[in-house]
Amino acid sequence: MLTLLGLGLEPTDISLKGLAIAKKADSVYLEKYTSIVLDETEIESILGREIKYAYREDIEGSDGGDPLIITEAMEKEVVLLVVGTPLFATTHTELLIRAQELKIGIQVLHNSSIQSAMGCCGFNSYGFGRTVSIPFFIDNWRPYDFLKNIMVNFENGLHTLCLLDIKINEPTIATLLGQENVRYNRFMTIPEAIAQIEEAAMKSGVPEINSIKIVGIERLGQSTERFTYGTLSELKEKEFGSPLHSIIIPSVHGNAMERECVERFFKSKE
Amino acid sequence: MLTLLGLGLEPTDISLKGLAIAKKADSVYLEKYTSIVLDETEIESILGREIKYAYREDIEGSDGGDPLIITEAMEKEVVLLVVGTPLFATTHTELLIRAQELKIGIQVLHNSSIQSAMGCCGFNSYGFGRTVSIPFFIDNWRPYDFLKNIMVNFENGLHTLCLLDIKINEPTIATLLGQENVRYNRFMTIPEAIAQIEEAAMKSGVPEINSIKIVGIERLGQSTERFTYGTLSELKEKEFGSPLHSIIIPSVHGNAMERECVERFFKSKE
Repeated sequence: MLTLLGLGLEPTDISLKGLAIAKKADSVYLEKYTSIVLDETEIESILGREIKYAYREDIEGSDGGDPLIITEAMEKEVVLLVVGTPLFATTHTELLIRAQELKIGIQVLHNSSIQSAMGCCGFNSYGFGRTVSIPFFIDNWRPYDFLKNIMVNFENGLHTLCLLDIKINEPTIATLLGQENVRYNRFMTIPEAIAQIEEAAMKSGVPEINSIKIVGIERLGQSTERFTYGTLSELKEKEFGSPLHSIIIPSVHGNAMERECVERFFKSKE
Repeated sequence: MLTLLGLGLEPTDISLKGLAIAKKADSVYLEKYTSIVLDETEIESILGREIKYAYREDIEGSDGGDPLIITEAMEKEVVLLVVGTPLFATTHTELLIRAQELKIGIQVLHNSSIQSAMGCCGFNSYGFGRTVSIPFFIDNWRPYDFLKNIMVNFENGLHTLCLLDIKINEPTIATLLGQENVRYNRFMTIPEAIAQIEEAAMKSGVPEINSIKIVGIERLGQSTERFTYGTLSELKEKEFGSPLHSIIIPSVHGNAMERECVERFFKSKE
């Protein structure tokens, strides 16, 4: 039996149902590669038990074999804790389908995720188009597709929630070459994302976008959550705190009532 | 102090953080008009306290005055329980902004919502465009805008999550005329939604869509949750259980790998 258990945006977001299942399970793993890791000690203290870590190979398998999580779930009650909600990343969808194919019992406990950001700050959730991921540009690998998707949303009067790239447990090139054993985490900041949006806009010949007012989101759903409203140029110069960061790019053709709501939200927060 | 507390998809989805806040609050209200109501006795038993009900006028106010929830939150710790996640409906966003304007402390506890359905059944959450609401047609009021939005998603290779209308505590015409005092709840079913989609397609001159394969979703996140996959024509003839119902209309231009995932999901569920 396998339970994909969404933890939400901070450790105390775990649901009563989820807590009961995790307490009784034979093994509890924390998924450590698709998202930022919450305070593990706090999670252990809430669950009242030790948790193990699951990395890419434990979840995706290697050499075509089934991953550890699946083989263990054939015999035991296994819980995989996922920060946010489990079926947002395709990795977990693959796990769900594989478990079904092997006739392993499977259950999914949804929870809050970064998609909850859509309703914050006065925006109407129905006014959002496709969610966009902004990946770290690397040397010559500078994909500008995300800008095309933002533009399609613009054309249809829709806002865009932009998720910023994270790298978890990434090897350095020297590590890949066997010369050292250093791995690092890296989280894209709002200014880094803006620099990439500006580069993509310039290279794609998209008219001046620096004057569009966007929302910078930090640590959604946590006690230190913060929203910052300003133009791309303004936010590029601001200081932001610890991860995760995300961005909302409102439609330039958004309706007046909604825009007023957003303005009121930020004015009343001052 | 006002807390907008998302309950998620069933009563035991409440978070540990939410439970602690609701136990200590001066008043706990359950919002009874934007969504289906979960088992109230179960909620009371989980919270270990009585809950009060909040209807439209308690939340939106009347005659331009501030609503009960706001005036009470000026003096006391008030919790408003919302099924799903609080900021999905604009009503709650207005409450949030109004509280901020009056310098009332406010906190929002997100939770899972019907948007979690996007990742179910093998779809990629990033492949969804704008979410669409299908309202009950009434006599001459038959708005077909939702079809236009589905078509825009199609053109951009995006899936559509369709939320089906609900009417909570609605008066009959005789009740409005003061001739009786009958109020009712009504939840759009999958076959009702399909009939409206077909009517909108026919009237809008959209080519034959009856052969598109869609997903019917019942009671997402509850123990009786069910997904049904088939053409519009097939699902229109099927029997479905109790509410809520929703629909996913996959992009006709979706990518082959994702379509294979969806097919595998349903095949392995058999």
